[in-house]
Amino acid sequence: MIDSRGSIQAVSFESRVLKENLPGDPHVRDLYVYLPPDYEASGDRYPVIWVLTGFTGRGRQLLNDGAWAPALNDRMDGLIAAGKCRPAILAMPDCFTHLGGSQYVNSVGLGRYEDYLVRELVPLVDERFRTLPGPRHRGVMGKSSGGFGAISLGMKHADIFGAVACHSGDMFFEFCYTRDFGPALRRIRKAGGVEAWYREFRAALKLRDEDHAPLDTLAMAACYSPNPAAPPAYCDLPFDLETGAARPEVWARWAAFDPLNLVERHAANLRGLRLLFLDCGTEDEFYLDLGARQMSAKLKALGIGHEYQEFEDGHMGVSYRYDVSLPQMTAALAP
Amino acid sequence: MIDSRGSIQAVSFESRVLKENLPGDPHVRDLYVYLPPDYEASGDRYPVIWVLTGFTGRGRQLLNDGAWAPALNDRMDGLIAAGKCRPAILAMPDCFTHLGGSQYVNSVGLGRYEDYLVRELVPLVDERFRTLPGPRHRGVMGKSSGGFGAISLGMKHADIFGAVACHSGDMFFEFCYTRDFGPALRRIRKAGGVEAWYREFRAALKLRDEDHAPLDTLAMAACYSPNPAAPPAYCDLPFDLETGAARPEVWARWAAFDPLNLVERHAANLRGLRLLFLDCGTEDEFYLDLGARQMSAKLKALGIGHEYQEFEDGHMGVSYRYDVSLPQMTAALAP
Amino acid sequence: MIDSRGSIQAVSFESRVLKENLPGDPHVRDLYVYLPPDYEASGDRYPVIWVLTGFTGRGRQLLNDGAWAPALNDRMDGLIAAGKCRPAILAMPDCFTHLGGSQYVNSVGLGRYEDYLVRELVPLVDERFRTLPGPRHRGVMGKSSGGFGAISLGMKHADIFGAVACHSGDMFFEFCYTRDFGPALRRIRKAGGVEAWYREFRAALKLRDEDHAPLDTLAMAACYSPNPAAPPAYCDLPFDLETGAARPEVWARWAAFDPLNLVERHAANLRGLRLLFLDCGTEDEFYLDLGARQMSAKLKALGIGHEYQEFEDGHMGVSYRYDVSLPQMTAALAP
Amino acid sequence: MIDSRGSIQAVSFESRVLKENLPGDPHVRDLYVYLPPDYEASGDRYPVIWVLTGFTGRGRQLLNDGAWAPALNDRMDGLIAAGKCRPAILAMPDCFTHLGGSQYVNSVGLGRYEDYLVRELVPLVDERFRTLPGPRHRGVMGKSSGGFGAISLGMKHADIFGAVACHSGDMFFEFCYTRDFGPALRRIRKAGGVEAWYREFRAALKLRDEDHAPLDTLAMAACYSPNPAAPPAYCDLPFDLETGAARPEVWARWAAFDPLNLVERHAANLRGLRLLFLDCGTEDEFYLDLGARQMSAKLKALGIGHEYQEFEDGHMGVSYRYDVSLPQMTAALAP
Repeated sequence: MIDSRGSIQAVSFESRVLKENLPGDPHVRDLYVYLPPDYEASGDRYPVIWVLTGFTGRGRQLLNDGAWAPALNDRMDGLIAAGKCRPAILAMPDCFTHLGGSQYVNSVGLGRYEDYLVRELVPLVDERFRTLPGPRHRGVMGKSSGGFGAISLGMKHADIFGAVACHSGDMFFEFCYTRDFGPALRRIRKAGGVEAWYREFRAALKLRDEDHAPLDTLAMAACYSPNPAAPPAYCDLPFDLETGAARPEVWARWAAFDPLNLVERHAANLRGLRLLFLDCGTEDEFYLDLGARQMSAKLKALGIGHEYQEFEDGHMGVSYRYDVSLPQMTAALAP
Repeated sequence: MIDSRGSIQAVSFESRVLKENLPGDPHVRDLYVYLPPDYEASGDRYPVIWVLTGFTGRGRQLLNDGAWAPALNDRMDGLIAAGKCRPAILAMPDCFTHLGGSQYVNSVGLGRYEDYLVRELVPLVDERFRTLPGPRHRGVMGKSSGGFGAISLGMKHADIFGAVACHSGDMFFEFCYTRDFGPALRRIRKAGGVEAWYREFRAALKLRDEDHAPLDTLAMAACYSPNPAAPPAYCDLPFDLETGAARPEVWARWAAFDPLNLVERHAANLRGLRLLFLDCGTEDEFYLDLGARQMSAKLKALGIGHEYQEFEDGHMGVSYRYDVSLPQMTAALAP
Repeated sequence: MIDSRGSIQAVSFESRVLKENLPGDPHVRDLYVYLPPDYEASGDRYPVIWVLTGFTGRGRQLLNDGAWAPALNDRMDGLIAAGKCRPAILAMPDCFTHLGGSQYVNSVGLGRYEDYLVRELVPLVDERFRTLPGPRHRGVMGKSSGGFGAISLGMKHADIFGAVACHSGDMFFEFCYTRDFGPALRRIRKAGGVEAWYREFRAALKLRDEDHAPLDTLAMAACYSPNPAAPPAYCDLPFDLETGAARPEVWARWAAFDPLNLVERHAANLRGLRLLFLDCGTEDEFYLDLGARQMSAKLKALGIGHEYQEFEDGHMGVSYRYDVSLPQMTAALAP
Repeated sequence: MIDSRGSIQAVSFESRVLKENLPGDPHVRDLYVYLPPDYEASGDRYPVIWVLTGFTGRGRQLLNDGAWAPALNDRMDGLIAAGKCRPAILAMPDCFTHLGGSQYVNSVGLGRYEDYLVRELVPLVDERFRTLPGPRHRGVMGKSSGGFGAISLGMKHADIFGAVACHSGDMFFEFCYTRDFGPALRRIRKAGGVEAWYREFRAALKLRDEDHAPLDTLAMAACYSPNPAAPPAYCDLPFDLETGAARPEVWARWAAFDPLNLVERHAANLRGLRLLFLDCGTEDEFYLDLGARQMSAKLKALGIGHEYQEFEDGHMGVSYRYDVSLPQMTAALAP
């Protein structure tokens, strides 16, 4: 029994990169690390998979227990015990912000979360644990905003990550984000503007349904079109708050982050990946399947090897898809 | 009692303009005409207001009775009896098509409904009834697609219509139509393509909820980007059916119909209107309030007089707004 | 062309029975009568089918036009033209009240609508039109509350109605009505009590979504458990407005109207019907299919001949079911 | 920093009581125990609060992290640090079953979870940790099904629990459970019966929306009206699966568990509690506020001291209410 369960370590780390981030979010955070069952006994070195949560998540939530959705450590224990996964370390960073997330990018409105992850946490894990360092044995994966993070980081940092799994990842921004603009505009106007809405949001006992759209929209703006001179959300919106009219110069800043627009530039990096796994549900409420389908077509057109799967489900509650990606990740990264 | 109720006449008319329309929709149709209570007795001539229904509607539906939403004739009777409206003739044309509507435009995929209305029906009414002919005494109004029709026809045909009331009218196409593209794409793909979906739609005992988005999208495409070589819907879609990717050349054809893009060109005509009334609900599910707000701003910027109102409600069940516009229309058109 | 279309007559009638009804609803009302295409020419006498609308409806609404749901007269014209229906007169009474309906029963809180229909309108039609009088040639049908009315009146008045078609009719009250009690209680309490809610409801420009449950519940209470001493809704509620606790003595009054509880008593009458047609959708939002299934089982157990059909749809937009019942009705009632 | 954080222990325990439970659920389970920050250093004995999860939950889930809803240990740390709570041990048992829960009762269809908790786990915690044993210092609390468990166990076991907090607890069964009967019946019939549905449910990758109602209904039946002879759910349903007709003899077995029906019998026990806290949201989707209001009225009528609060929210996402109850619990149980 003891042998079949891996262990969890919470590593508290004081970040220089995040220190003095504009919104004043914590710069001392816990990184959660899963060590496989045989870690103590073996003395071996292991591949590391960085697992990125979706919007409003942080690493620790991957360890949340669910009635029919096991915590990630339990899932990994099960996959290893069943012989489906090779043992690996899982690293689960906290890139949460006052607006619910960071998209794992550097933003002057939120903080440099890409640098935090790549320059601070990756070396930290290699230093503290018996890892197999280097991109051959280091992967990155995640779902939704975490899927966006995985493919974005994988594209740009081929020297760091050698395998990518992107589940229901944010892309095709014209479709996935714009649906929220109308509800966001209405809710913010009703509150009396961004500042007034922000105060209400912060004072509420919980995130109310009607605050999802404004939170999501402001968070994405703080990631993609930050404006340090515009507290409290420190961003420019890609539409006029009175009429919804497009602000193309702001939207262009968003579009620059859309993975669909980055494939060509990073084609060489993508081609070098040991694994590039993409999937999405055909009922995804944000229509991310359309983005994934375009991504797969672009990759194919460029001759970039990848695996693409569609499954019949929506956006939420699809952690069972890790059962498909984790075996491929551990196989690709194994020594 | 008898004096307080107007009468309804159904005028059957065989259209040359609609004859041999591509989808084979009827070219003999009933035009419904409301004559005010004193019409028989007075011998007077009256202004005419053309009332255009929304999508999936035809003139006769304006006479539908509702528990708390009176038929248009009953409403008009009440407004006249209360001294709020001057007597007027109401003309309610049938511009319905196999796809649920025509947007009152000429389309090679549907038929020339603009010509039908302007060249055939307007003269017909002036011939058959004691009207005050000429734009000074002829107005056009409607809701939703009918509001679009009203403002579009008013812009282009200053020689015909001298007053416009546009309730919750289609405009700001980027917002009001694109929300349907995702659901439409999914439903059509699930059916096996446009032709297969069309067959299912035609065979169904009723319009099912899941068919609203594809029907709306195909109908708008048949109006704005028709393609006679593409049966059975005779249109080009503004997105790729596989990936949702934008087809900008098709979208440009749509945009050319957006009233927001036509204001400048028709500024002189708009300036000449005796009444230009616009309203929209602030909870409009298609965000048409944003379009209306932009329209009002554009009109203001061009110095075009108009009345703009917002009210707290959504898109459906707002026929009570006629109580606001009809008095203004009849006042503007009165001799 | 002229031969294939029946005609509509609106008969204004001043009711003694409804005069001085407690809530002050009109006692002069229009009865709509459909006469088949050959009525004028033939000189024949015809069977009469009384068609009862659902809650919030009145006879005239059966003539409403719909994009894919024809008005009842158009539907009947089509069925006759296709040889599916024998010619018949359709009578469409107005039993609407200040609370949206009467369930076609006598109520001290609303008015004596059963008497109005049976004692005043039925003789009126036989007097004014060339009918085949007597139950052999007179049927009653309807949907939802109209289906309840049809089967209730058919059970009690075998001397008047000889055929019944009950579409998605109210029965199994424990299931179909109680779902509304929670929302009704909340909405009424929020308004500040029944009287305050009623004032809001009457002042509103339209029936708002949140007012459906209280309206439905109060209307049913005014029908089944009226209380003339309790204005403005003149009824007792079957639950405590503070806690929702059941008031069994009030509920017992409701249960006395549930068709399921009346079958045995009226078995002889039911057995004598020339047609007893029942149907319901298997997705009926009020679970009326469960009631219908019980009704059919009871009828079977009592050896009462009837036709029972289930179809795959919900409660709304099922007027296409008349295509099934009207042919059977006209066949059963034909001379 | 170290001082301000309590610790978590997972105690694995092999239960004799659960061994050979009918559905074959595990009898070796983890009990999660929170020890307050000063536990190690102080050498003191502490009160114990048993915290029961809602349906589909188990103790470990109380430790789940949320973006704006802290894990229970973090919440408790914060309350203690802020001086709002006295230090206490929190015990979080796992009473999950193959049907999602046990309601903390003894059932021949599920297992003896009441005995498991009261006879095995309570002594275990007193043995393993430095507790203040006895009801003066032992409380029980929970939300939803956990609130039901708390008040039920508190009523019956005055010798064990001296304080109760019941958040949005199941009661007034006529309202809170019956809404699911219609959807449950439909879903089960569509699957082809209970056994077929159960197989589908077990084979699914996740709990689908449409399976909530049947799962909830079957689980409650397995708790309140178990039938060991009826695999795989081992229960009798309180309605006929064909028609929805009530089965009063089964419903009577359910009603015997409704806390509203147990107050009188256990009045003496309830009167002896050091704390009896009740609350519910006024928008509770299961209308549990109506039950809570009745409970409070009954307690008042019997002169049983208690605190009753209503708050403006629904049933889900209300863990912030622990901020109100935990301070009262720890105050009531403090030495």
